Amino acid sequence: MADIQRLLSDRAGKLRKSEIRELLKVTQDPEIISFAGGLPNPRSFPIDDIDGIIDDVLREKGKDALQYGTTQGVPELREQIADRANKDGITHINAEHITITSGSQQGLDTIGKLFLNPGDVALVGLPSYLGGINAFRSYESNLTGIPLDKDGMRIDILEETIKEHLKENITPKFVYVVPTFQNPAGVIMPESRRKELIDLANNYDLVIVEDDPYGKLSYDVSHIKPIKAYDDEDRVVYMSTFSKILSPGFRLAWMIASPELTRKIILCKQALDLCTNTFTQYIAAEFMRRGSLDLHIMRICEMYKPKRDLMMKAMKEYFPKNHLCYKPLGGMFAWVTLPEGIDTEIMFLDAIKEKVAYVHGKAFHVDGGGERSMRLNFSYPTNEQIEEGMHRLGKVIHNKLDAIPAV
Amino acid sequence: MADIQRLLSDRAGKLRKSEIRELLKVTQDPEIISFAGGLPNPRSFPIDDIDGIIDDVLREKGKDALQYGTTQGVPELREQIADRANKDGITHINAEHITITSGSQQGLDTIGKLFLNPGDVALVGLPSYLGGINAFRSYESNLTGIPLDKDGMRIDILEETIKEHLKENITPKFVYVVPTFQNPAGVIMPESRRKELIDLANNYDLVIVEDDPYGKLSYDVSHIKPIKAYDDEDRVVYMSTFSKILSPGFRLAWMIASPELTRKIILCKQALDLCTNTFTQYIAAEFMRRGSLDLHIMRICEMYKPKRDLMMKAMKEYFPKNHLCYKPLGGMFAWVTLPEGIDTEIMFLDAIKEKVAYVHGKAFHVDGGGERSMRLNFSYPTNEQIEEGMHRLGKVIHNKLDAIPAV
Repeated sequence: MADIQRLLSDRAGKLRKSEIRELLKVTQDPEIISFAGGLPNPRSFPIDDIDGIIDDVLREKGKDALQYGTTQGVPELREQIADRANKDGITHINAEHITITSGSQQGLDTIGKLFLNPGDVALVGLPSYLGGINAFRSYESNLTGIPLDKDGMRIDILEETIKEHLKENITPKFVYVVPTFQNPAGVIMPESRRKELIDLANNYDLVIVEDDPYGKLSYDVSHIKPIKAYDDEDRVVYMSTFSKILSPGFRLAWMIASPELTRKIILCKQALDLCTNTFTQYIAAEFMRRGSLDLHIMRICEMYKPKRDLMMKAMKEYFPKNHLCYKPLGGMFAWVTLPEGIDTEIMFLDAIKEKVAYVHGKAFHVDGGGERSMRLNFSYPTNEQIEEGMHRLGKVIHNKLDAIPAV
Repeated sequence: MADIQRLLSDRAGKLRKSEIRELLKVTQDPEIISFAGGLPNPRSFPIDDIDGIIDDVLREKGKDALQYGTTQGVPELREQIADRANKDGITHINAEHITITSGSQQGLDTIGKLFLNPGDVALVGLPSYLGGINAFRSYESNLTGIPLDKDGMRIDILEETIKEHLKENITPKFVYVVPTFQNPAGVIMPESRRKELIDLANNYDLVIVEDDPYGKLSYDVSHIKPIKAYDDEDRVVYMSTFSKILSPGFRLAWMIASPELTRKIILCKQALDLCTNTFTQYIAAEFMRRGSLDLHIMRICEMYKPKRDLMMKAMKEYFPKNHLCYKPLGGMFAWVTLPEGIDTEIMFLDAIKEKVAYVHGKAFHVDGGGERSMRLNFSYPTNEQIEEGMHRLGKVIHNKLDAIPAV
């Protein structure tokens, strides 16, 4: 048989399994109540609206919608997105600054491909989104973690870390942040800190990759401007997606970048997949043109907010008193840190026995930390599952704590 | 302003513009008759069938079809593809050997990511598909060209080249072939040579990447088994796509590989885009389940064959006698080699002035050759455009030849 191993690239040898994906497999058991995934609730999908739109798209634009499209993306869609970005505070950009990607994951991969040589350093949150970690690591980079607090990434530690790297002649290639309803930590970076981050980036000539999949899923706070809104020096690459506000199956996301970088992004994407699914791009553009998106986002928030509340209430009731969890003001996740002595990776086996699942904190930590933390998703499960699942999980945690020998 | 240039990866600096994409921009002028593109004819898109299928998919499977899917691809679709592959002679494979990719371009990118370190050598045809060249070059590889004749890649020269490389301690990572209705050369590799290629691969422990987008678009010859059909040692990665037989806008293609390599492909794809568009996967699966695909392929062939004939007839009529073109027995392209003294890249400017376009041969040659050749697409233009465009192109060529000083 062929000996393929010897022919593989260095990076292929270093590819790691995505922990989330492996976990999701375990949780396919229908008896398990899973807080592990990161899925939108399928009840939120606007199936009827989509069906109606498709009839029109096929009738009026079928020959374009089923054909290859330009690498940068369908112009109608980019124009709609540019309009929204302008309203959200990212002014002075237009459709030419936008590239449609096949999910945000492709945006993250593109960032890796464009910036990272093997051994290069990028800075990410502690904790940070797994998909970002995965994409950047696939280019054999070294990821340095910057701790978060309740207001997101710690700018003081970020600056210290940059200084240390520069002292060793290492230029961090970019800072990767999810400033609004961070995955997994659920926290939001306030305006003052966003401005501090931009000042820092300007001082040290840094690139910031701002990933914003959850910004519109806001339950208690009014809109806060993206970091990109404060970017006078074209150093922020902003990314967002339709996965959480329309349909993940459509695989549609977008990047906003400087004209110079957008040219590079397009060249890169030509080699990646020529163009993103044209058909779903036309559907999304028409969904926006009809003004359905804002209404739909409102509906999603009305569905997720009570789930968030239910999870927080159940956590109070069933979890040990000395856990830590900042109430997530938006997004899809609660991030819990448990008392000393617990390792959530080990505890996962107990949880599965009790038919409840989560993602353990280490998966989100590039420094091996996070052993007392876990991420809980509240968007996907039903209300009954949240109540029952949190009950089960509370039991698992209490049992684990009871088993820790007193010192 | 940000100085992003200094932060880019080595590979980002080497990204080249896709010649085809740039050419397509020039040919947007509606007065130009373009033989340059590689687009299916939009009149072939089964819009009504798709519309009906979507109603059912949304009603019956909407919650899955709009959700994230597994990285490997929707099981129903992979099963349908496995069935067809078995019928086509690729026996002993099942749905587990198949990965759905976001267009074949993503398959090519994945091959590059899995096999190519910077400086690595891969072997490709002279000429060869541009998208493959682009993808492999994006990993900073060195591509060595193997000449084609009327039966496809020359196996004797391939063996010689491999020997030469091995003598210099260079292991070519894979051989990239498009054996059936090659893009751009239009030729088909006969069964005997396919077996020779497999024997060679077995002898030298090579990996073969078999790209087969056009195999079903056959106008004069009965089905010929893919190289993968003769692969007893799991060393052929087979790729095909829905772009030419259903819709390119759906961005759906597939790879068939050994279980070992499939695991790597899936890990790689997790970092690339998590999963391919779920919605269009369900549509394609249902299109196949209903038995519509074979019927539809028949219709496409009935549309393209007369176009091919028309182009060959016009070529005979309008081109100089001493051009060379093997009649393409399938696919979407005719490949023409013109008499000595012509450079098709230079002649392109004359052609544009006469409002007709093609892709010059150099674009498909990794060795800088092909200056007398051009690729002509016959699937996209109307019959009238083929007649008129070939007339114009013939005039351009004759003028060019007349201007060459006699020696």
